[in-house]
Amino acid sequence: MLTDAATADLHAFFGDRFSTDRAVLRAHAQSESLIDAPAPWAVVFPDNTAQVARLAVLSARHGFALIGWGAGTSLEGHALARLGGVTVDFSRMAKVLAVYPEDMLAVVQPGLTREALNEELRATGLFFPVDPGANASIGGMVATRASGTATVRYGSMRDNVLGVEVVLADGQIIRTGSSAPKSAAGYDLTALMVGSEGTLGLITEITLRLHGQPEAVSAATCGFASIADAVDCVIATIQTRLPMARIEFLDEAAVAACNDFSGLELPLCPQLMVEFHGSPQSVTEQAARFGDLAAEFGSTGFQWARAQEDRTRLWKARYDAYRAILASRPGCKAIVTDVCVPISALAEAVEETRADIASTPVPGPILGHVGDGNFHAILLVRDGDAAEAAIARALAQRMAERALRLGGTITGEHGVRFGKLALMAAEHGPGWQVMGAIKRALDPQNRLNPGKLVPQG
Amino acid sequence: MLTDAATADLHAFFGDRFSTDRAVLRAHAQSESLIDAPAPWAVVFPDNTAQVARLAVLSARHGFALIGWGAGTSLEGHALARLGGVTVDFSRMAKVLAVYPEDMLAVVQPGLTREALNEELRATGLFFPVDPGANASIGGMVATRASGTATVRYGSMRDNVLGVEVVLADGQIIRTGSSAPKSAAGYDLTALMVGSEGTLGLITEITLRLHGQPEAVSAATCGFASIADAVDCVIATIQTRLPMARIEFLDEAAVAACNDFSGLELPLCPQLMVEFHGSPQSVTEQAARFGDLAAEFGSTGFQWARAQEDRTRLWKARYDAYRAILASRPGCKAIVTDVCVPISALAEAVEETRADIASTPVPGPILGHVGDGNFHAILLVRDGDAAEAAIARALAQRMAERALRLGGTITGEHGVRFGKLALMAAEHGPGWQVMGAIKRALDPQNRLNPGKLVPQG
Repeated sequence: MLTDAATADLHAFFGDRFSTDRAVLRAHAQSESLIDAPAPWAVVFPDNTAQVARLAVLSARHGFALIGWGAGTSLEGHALARLGGVTVDFSRMAKVLAVYPEDMLAVVQPGLTREALNEELRATGLFFPVDPGANASIGGMVATRASGTATVRYGSMRDNVLGVEVVLADGQIIRTGSSAPKSAAGYDLTALMVGSEGTLGLITEITLRLHGQPEAVSAATCGFASIADAVDCVIATIQTRLPMARIEFLDEAAVAACNDFSGLELPLCPQLMVEFHGSPQSVTEQAARFGDLAAEFGSTGFQWARAQEDRTRLWKARYDAYRAILASRPGCKAIVTDVCVPISALAEAVEETRADIASTPVPGPILGHVGDGNFHAILLVRDGDAAEAAIARALAQRMAERALRLGGTITGEHGVRFGKLALMAAEHGPGWQVMGAIKRALDPQNRLNPGKLVPQG
Repeated sequence: MLTDAATADLHAFFGDRFSTDRAVLRAHAQSESLIDAPAPWAVVFPDNTAQVARLAVLSARHGFALIGWGAGTSLEGHALARLGGVTVDFSRMAKVLAVYPEDMLAVVQPGLTREALNEELRATGLFFPVDPGANASIGGMVATRASGTATVRYGSMRDNVLGVEVVLADGQIIRTGSSAPKSAAGYDLTALMVGSEGTLGLITEITLRLHGQPEAVSAATCGFASIADAVDCVIATIQTRLPMARIEFLDEAAVAACNDFSGLELPLCPQLMVEFHGSPQSVTEQAARFGDLAAEFGSTGFQWARAQEDRTRLWKARYDAYRAILASRPGCKAIVTDVCVPISALAEAVEETRADIASTPVPGPILGHVGDGNFHAILLVRDGDAAEAAIARALAQRMAERALRLGGTITGEHGVRFGKLALMAAEHGPGWQVMGAIKRALDPQNRLNPGKLVPQG
């Protein structure tokens, strides 16, 4: 709990932007997943970087932890105050500070959501392509190294963050990177902050790379007789270097859930959802080449979504897949798994996972950003059923181990937080201790999002 | 100097792969630039990672420093034993360990040169695109976050290194990254090692992203009436998002030097050298679009290099530009500057630099990878002329300050080592101290390439 002295200091400085209201605390203890976490001790809503720095100084003085909060869309509970502390809600720092169309850059605050950013960019002919589905905050996306459906073409946050302003544990403000397209000036602190999950600093400003809105866009769905055919088609597509903008996989169970929830009428079989960006001519050419490839793998029911409203409907259904799958088994919570493997191992990884899930009573539709080798099984566990939860956790564990055996990673995009701490040593060996050493160097009192990512205790 | 005990241990373990031969030491004290550095105390030629780890253990036991050495092509003296110590020459660790065509990855040893790698890849249809000009070692390119002529299209080492094996200061071996296309599993240690200039660990193995050899390639040179016209054409080209494979700038003095040295017959005016990669159709389309843009900026003398031998001659001349410029003023050494600015500031940066150089007696042809906002002035200083050296250093300082003022960086690709230490604080502010904290966390005894990159003393 906050001491009286800490509460007094916070209240004196932040006034009504400091809250211990029960409803506010509860709103910052919510999670999409099975994670149980206590509410934070308090929530602060800073207006600017100087206030965040001040907060860090108070945190140092009184010894309470700070946990950043963006839009609360993390599937892994990154922003939960696992060990208590003060949540830093960035919803009042949500502006686009500048757009530089000539350099294709934008400078934004962390609380801005990606949809709000793209809304502001609409008239510029530019857009920000990293798209994890949820309307996440940019700050949260930096902190978790988010990626998503368009990463196969445009890269993840690793590739699209040029620099950040960060408040360190002691209240110092640093700026990483520059506005130049590249630099060799020392350690890549930008890359270190991207994916650090709030454990090294609080991100208060971000310089993002923008991309040109594609002249033409076309999307399609395409069914296959088996998972193997669909995934082999993806592998061939990537290896042919077709510049796909999106290439998403849904297994039959995921398709059924989306049909029911979003009113799609996709044939009940493994499906790929694809999108092409480019000039009208190149989009036509790409689509034709993809169609040829898909036919080689026995595709059926190639359905175009050429009109904007059809594409919107299709991708909305894809983004709603998580909710659709949750709705397919009422009274359940989900354990969302997230592994990523080399493209060549994708078929093996997906098929083994499919068989593994099928051997249990727990349903687990599979879908993913397969162009990156990244897929998820959404394991549906009856709320309060400890036996099912244990089965699902064991499935998730085997998925992660399988990914490692195939040269992949325990998390493609959702991050580590504390659910995957035990797997970090398996993936990184002594490299995980190096992460711990960096954490201790930058946050020796362990006040920034404690209990997560690095070795504990 | 090495103690007798250290010498005995090194000799006992490494036998004739440990050398204190004067000629060997001298060969590892050479530099392309004005840097004076003493020879190392000894040179070790390890055969494998275990031997490098053993070397680190001996370094810890006896307290001597370790300095990695690849191909010795650094323009900034990264691999010089500035404060003494033992040079680790990776020339015996120069193999391609594996190529995974399906995943477009190669695993290589650090001593391998980029030309040797591409020679081995030739039959696979793949290539490694990062091309700093010199036939650098891959390990050195990782350590300096190298980029070069093709970075505008394919990215730098930051974008093309998927993982590394590193021997830490205490002899521990860690592996960063995975073979999956992306990961959210903790701090990005790969990115931390890329560009760390040998100060955090010795890189012993690298997993590289490969790219498809382009179906068709076409190159051209194109003259302009003024630097402003040439650079404005580059800015327009980048902003039009033409997917240039290379777009290089040479000012009139650089052109003259290349004509003389390499037997080119380019008109004496600012020139762009460009290259297009793609399908035959797209290359034709790109070239036509670039031709239109160049014409808008008053280009003259568009010369095609369609045949492979013409392209080879052209790019060889570009790579030899440094030697050509050196040869243009006999009896000189060069101070090679290296700044990088946002594309929108490129014209201002180049023109101010041109005028600044012209106001001094020191010649300084300008050339660069302008598609990245990156350019170099090669300042020619009469060997032993302290006054000229001082003028050149002041010019270099002003170039770096100008780059910072314009939102850029003090080094686009050559790195920091010790020549730019004073500028690091100007670029990074308190962020530079964060680099120092990371260095101390990973190398508390400062035995890895000491005297470079981080705050000293």
